[in-house]
Amino acid sequence: MPTLIHGGDWAGFAAEYGRLPLDFSANISPLGLPEGVRDAIASAAAQQDRYPDPLCRSLCAAIAESRGLPENWVLCGNGAANLIWRLAIAEKPRHALLVAPTFAEYASALQSIGCEVQEYVLDARDDFAIGRDFLDLITPETDIVLLCEPNNPTGRTTDRTLLQDVLESCRKNNTLLVVDECFNEFLDDPSAHTLESCLSQNPQLLILKAFTKWYAMAGVRLGYLLGSSPDRLERLRRAGQPWAVSGLAQAAGIAALKEKEYSRALHALIAAQRPLMAAGLTSLGCRVVPGEANYLLFYHPARDLVGALRRKGVLIRDCSNYTGLEQGWYRCAVRSPAENQTFLRVMQEVL
Amino acid sequence: MPTLIHGGDWAGFAAEYGRLPLDFSANISPLGLPEGVRDAIASAAAQQDRYPDPLCRSLCAAIAESRGLPENWVLCGNGAANLIWRLAIAEKPRHALLVAPTFAEYASALQSIGCEVQEYVLDARDDFAIGRDFLDLITPETDIVLLCEPNNPTGRTTDRTLLQDVLESCRKNNTLLVVDECFNEFLDDPSAHTLESCLSQNPQLLILKAFTKWYAMAGVRLGYLLGSSPDRLERLRRAGQPWAVSGLAQAAGIAALKEKEYSRALHALIAAQRPLMAAGLTSLGCRVVPGEANYLLFYHPARDLVGALRRKGVLIRDCSNYTGLEQGWYRCAVRSPAENQTFLRVMQEVL
Repeated sequence: MPTLIHGGDWAGFAAEYGRLPLDFSANISPLGLPEGVRDAIASAAAQQDRYPDPLCRSLCAAIAESRGLPENWVLCGNGAANLIWRLAIAEKPRHALLVAPTFAEYASALQSIGCEVQEYVLDARDDFAIGRDFLDLITPETDIVLLCEPNNPTGRTTDRTLLQDVLESCRKNNTLLVVDECFNEFLDDPSAHTLESCLSQNPQLLILKAFTKWYAMAGVRLGYLLGSSPDRLERLRRAGQPWAVSGLAQAAGIAALKEKEYSRALHALIAAQRPLMAAGLTSLGCRVVPGEANYLLFYHPARDLVGALRRKGVLIRDCSNYTGLEQGWYRCAVRSPAENQTFLRVMQEVL
Repeated sequence: MPTLIHGGDWAGFAAEYGRLPLDFSANISPLGLPEGVRDAIASAAAQQDRYPDPLCRSLCAAIAESRGLPENWVLCGNGAANLIWRLAIAEKPRHALLVAPTFAEYASALQSIGCEVQEYVLDARDDFAIGRDFLDLITPETDIVLLCEPNNPTGRTTDRTLLQDVLESCRKNNTLLVVDECFNEFLDDPSAHTLESCLSQNPQLLILKAFTKWYAMAGVRLGYLLGSSPDRLERLRRAGQPWAVSGLAQAAGIAALKEKEYSRALHALIAAQRPLMAAGLTSLGCRVVPGEANYLLFYHPARDLVGALRRKGVLIRDCSNYTGLEQGWYRCAVRSPAENQTFLRVMQEVL
């Protein structure tokens, strides 16, 4: 049986128990697919006898318009993860700098093409914040730096001044900087943290975004890269099959961008629920990292917490397979008020 | 503007003309998505807030059952093309043997990881049949052989005895043989040509299949590999993101396998229309290769045939960018009786 290293394996639970779990192991909007997105998928179904547009022309135009950027600064992928693998294949970096813990696909993709991955191990005593000594590791030998902002699974963002200094150091060292902003919208103030305004002056900067989490479209698969070097994006487009983004995902993405009310409601929901979840976990004796996204990293020494919750129908993410995290670290999503209350109640029963 | 090397660019036509073309440049079932598949997509839409099952458990079980093979002999991908790229990344062959012309993604994927591609150039005088001298090129240095059966764009199959000899030579030389059977079902006698019965004795054989063409699901993206080495399939699964196959594609695939009447009707349609199309093209002065699939490769010396047809709203595939084919070679799909008559009428007007 293959080992699955990520969360979200509802299908494995369903195969074992014959029903669906309450899934706190994946970080997805608790509001479900926006109705407009569901309708768009259903309407588009009959036209899927055509190959998808390999250039995602209409979708790229809609994304570009929504962000106020040129159309040729956008490259769509089959989920953000697809673009991470394309990056590895297209750029073939030899030396990469990552933090640890972080999203596991960066290292998987880079190592698949023989790239040496250097890890800056974050310290639990600093609540997994990146220190200024990170800058010392960016040298002319560093081909690529990948940062996840907010980081997954810690939920932490890097100090804005330090982030700018990383960008500047990458520019000086001719290093590609990829900032994964897939969870940016879940921050209390997304615009204060995104590096989008730096794109025009920094062709060596790429920003990774996804529809997956915000619009609860994880099963549809849709992500994109933003960058001010159309040549680089075109190289990335060629580093994989031409039809990676399905026609259904293209239709869903265009519909999602119109969901202003959904976005407003989701932002308010997460901002209200995150502190309640953190307080609830703390009161249960967990050490909670002050995360800023729609998930929380916490520590509890109880044995077999994942198994005990699973037997009660609740999935959380065991984080002990992340570099830099030992047994006892877990990640849970922030979901709807009712789901969060259920989660905290089951946690209490188990602990 | 990026160059698109494949057919099926209806979106480029629509951007220019503001309407959809009559698309004979992509080789897709003219019956459209089966109703059951459309319904399955619409029903599954609301559940796409979950990540797709990375192991495609239900879909693999359904494919395995439909083909009478073990479940762990099946690996699903985001279209067959996704699996071709995974093959390159997972196996990292150094020397590959292909025929020319053939599907362009094989060479694109192999060359992306630095593989040297040797091409056995097929001869128009032999109607692009593979000769027995192909066997001489398979040596212990050959890491992988890729054959497309029937071949795209020629529509030709390899003599069954020769195909078995290729398989045997690959076994002796420890060479991975990948047979792309994406168009196998369009043959008059699919079971007489597939190598599926050879899988159990040949762990170095992989068979590539797709839902794309037969079930008109090109926009949904779903393909799969069959092989009797579960270890190899697991390596391939890890050579890319875990969630390549969308939840929508998994639901669509399961529904498609139930479409027995669709399949019967499609097989009868193509078998009846292919000779009519070939006769029609021949009567217009084209040299038609005796193709066996749902498309025909033909030659005509008229200048700018693609442009002239396009201006009349019809797309065909200009094949002059294939190795081994010069200007004047084109590929057209075999579609419904009404569409084929329209196509031949427009061809007549243009020539």
